[in-house]
Amino acid sequence: MSEGSVAVTEPGFPDPVGPRTANLAALLRALRAGPLSRTQLAARCELTKATVSGLLTELSERGLVRPAGMLNAGNGRPSRLVELAGDSAYGLALAVEADGFAAVATDLGGRVIAERSETADVASLGLPRSMDELALLAGEVVRADRPVGVTVSVPGLVDPAASVLRFAPALRWRDAEIADLLAARLGLPADAITVDNEANLGAIGEAVSGAGIGVRELFYLSGGMGVGGGLVVGGTILRGARGFAGEVGHLTVDPSGEQCSCGRPGCLETKAGLNAVLRNAAAPGDPLHDPALGIEGRVTLLKHRVRAGDQRAVAAVAELGIALGVAVSTVVDVLDPDAVVLGGWFAELGEWLVEPVRHELSARILGQESVCRIEVSALGTAAALRGAAHLALERLFADPTLVPEILENTAEAPA
Amino acid sequence: MSEGSVAVTEPGFPDPVGPRTANLAALLRALRAGPLSRTQLAARCELTKATVSGLLTELSERGLVRPAGMLNAGNGRPSRLVELAGDSAYGLALAVEADGFAAVATDLGGRVIAERSETADVASLGLPRSMDELALLAGEVVRADRPVGVTVSVPGLVDPAASVLRFAPALRWRDAEIADLLAARLGLPADAITVDNEANLGAIGEAVSGAGIGVRELFYLSGGMGVGGGLVVGGTILRGARGFAGEVGHLTVDPSGEQCSCGRPGCLETKAGLNAVLRNAAAPGDPLHDPALGIEGRVTLLKHRVRAGDQRAVAAVAELGIALGVAVSTVVDVLDPDAVVLGGWFAELGEWLVEPVRHELSARILGQESVCRIEVSALGTAAALRGAAHLALERLFADPTLVPEILENTAEAPA
Repeated sequence: MSEGSVAVTEPGFPDPVGPRTANLAALLRALRAGPLSRTQLAARCELTKATVSGLLTELSERGLVRPAGMLNAGNGRPSRLVELAGDSAYGLALAVEADGFAAVATDLGGRVIAERSETADVASLGLPRSMDELALLAGEVVRADRPVGVTVSVPGLVDPAASVLRFAPALRWRDAEIADLLAARLGLPADAITVDNEANLGAIGEAVSGAGIGVRELFYLSGGMGVGGGLVVGGTILRGARGFAGEVGHLTVDPSGEQCSCGRPGCLETKAGLNAVLRNAAAPGDPLHDPALGIEGRVTLLKHRVRAGDQRAVAAVAELGIALGVAVSTVVDVLDPDAVVLGGWFAELGEWLVEPVRHELSARILGQESVCRIEVSALGTAAALRGAAHLALERLFADPTLVPEILENTAEAPA
Repeated sequence: MSEGSVAVTEPGFPDPVGPRTANLAALLRALRAGPLSRTQLAARCELTKATVSGLLTELSERGLVRPAGMLNAGNGRPSRLVELAGDSAYGLALAVEADGFAAVATDLGGRVIAERSETADVASLGLPRSMDELALLAGEVVRADRPVGVTVSVPGLVDPAASVLRFAPALRWRDAEIADLLAARLGLPADAITVDNEANLGAIGEAVSGAGIGVRELFYLSGGMGVGGGLVVGGTILRGARGFAGEVGHLTVDPSGEQCSCGRPGCLETKAGLNAVLRNAAAPGDPLHDPALGIEGRVTLLKHRVRAGDQRAVAAVAELGIALGVAVSTVVDVLDPDAVVLGGWFAELGEWLVEPVRHELSARILGQESVCRIEVSALGTAAALRGAAHLALERLFADPTLVPEILENTAEAPA
């Protein structure tokens, strides 16, 4: 076997879909790259032409594919081409952040159909009114037909099986049944709505359209109020037993350091959390501490000061680089990822963080040539919404039979 | 979606086999649990009965399934049952250890057909003569027909794609082309032979037949001369970019501790490597340091002393427990596994290690209910060979079309 990982079949690990659905999904994914003939699809998916015809009939009945002209191979009669019906279905990505909401609709080909965002103090607004606001925003981007899937990005710990937000300190929400609350407001079945952690979705966003394209094992380390982290391995989010995989905010980076809010000394968040970095960068009362500027405004101000050579700001960012380097080194020791992407507001300061992280990594991973790439996100804070849009559609690409259920619901319950 | 992990389709992450092969594999895996009728197979694999019949004909031609009597449902004509032809194919597991070799043949149902082991000073023997010895041992367990796959366990860093052992300090081998060397000696195609790290295979062994059965994310921490580690996530070995994932021997557990051979201070191996623990447990010249006793003999002696209340031995094992606890806590911070299995010689001392590890974990993972189970391996040092036997067969269960190629080779090159 030439694969880097070996599949192990176990009674406890069933295939997520049956073989027929897998065949439908394989055809749909093959068409993601562009139009193909039946012969090409049969070769690419290792199926007979007769099987491909049957499957295409089903995909066509579900409205997912359509004829796309003829392919003239020049040596006989031309072949009919089939393509994705890009506008036949779309996905909806929603985001709840501490300071507002966002909604994006993307078609089957991943193109943005519509997007909206709005500023709000979400913690003050509370859960029910926040869901009202988010549903209104969603209403501005959806079409007359229903989305095939909705993925909601939230800044907290999620139970992905139940689509429940277990705990979001920045919002002060606990056990928020986001999928049910939105399902009622959007007139969608709750199982069409998935909820995921913003760092996990950011990691997916980077993997599919950012600095992590083509990376097999990706660690995404993201600056927000705290520190978020996500792992994508072979295209799959690695969650862990409680959803904490990759959440390295409480990894020890300085055993003799300041006590963290969690009670342990020298956690990464005591060095790399937004307030910790800003405290290091400026005296109390400095505009850098003005919450009214938002995260983005304060980080932009910090960036200007570093660029201008402000010694305290420079030192604070240098210390941040070392802390991130120590944390990344530990992750490399445990996981050996192919690449680490610095996202969120860390990306804004990337030009001063990449070298310290690389330095710490090469100083600590002795006797081993470190091949781990350190990349700065080009998506920044947009990564989570990008990942959510991908997963909202992914439900359909993984299981094309999801469509009729949602269409049936549409017929039963007009919007 | 009710899955804990979400599949993301990416151009860079192709399916390992095509849909037809996946269907053959799905039928073969369904039969692993026992005989089934065509109707049952069709229902279980979401295929039409006609498709199942065609696929079963192919599996039968490959000799992998056979009739298994009739199922009388009592309401009409009885159905023909099909079962795995258990003895129709077998896998071969081989192990190279610092102090010897082992070989096990297992049939399609995972039952041991034959096993042999032999003691040798492998480092002194050198690579070519070791491969001769291993091939001789393999010859004592193989049948007249060829195995469907061979998996070789080695104590070192492996390039799994090339099936090359990159570096094994205990054997003093570098870039050892194990698959090619054994292929020539066994008269098998090199691509039927995979080589893997003993800790990875131990993790697989625990996942399929040991303390990790049914565990979704498993971290295996194994005591040998050094410290080995392996990660199995959703039934798949997590390898990392260079094959170092889970290899936590050089994770920092005491920043002010003794310098490790790697140059960094306080690596786990300075506290949990065999010699470090034995140095803590007894003065120089003590029989505990006699290499002639082997790892097993020395650990057994240490165990007796701890049980007898020897203060220095008790203190050494207590210190080992703390070091393992710190390392496990870091792994839990990064990966959040469902369970940690202590294997190799750590398992021998399990009764004194589990509590310190649990204690360290609950002291460090504050504000979070730790759900990570700490288990002691019941397989001990046999785990790697068990994992290798599983993977040797797994090649066939993942891709039943592997059989004719090997049969063709048999026909071309009689043993």
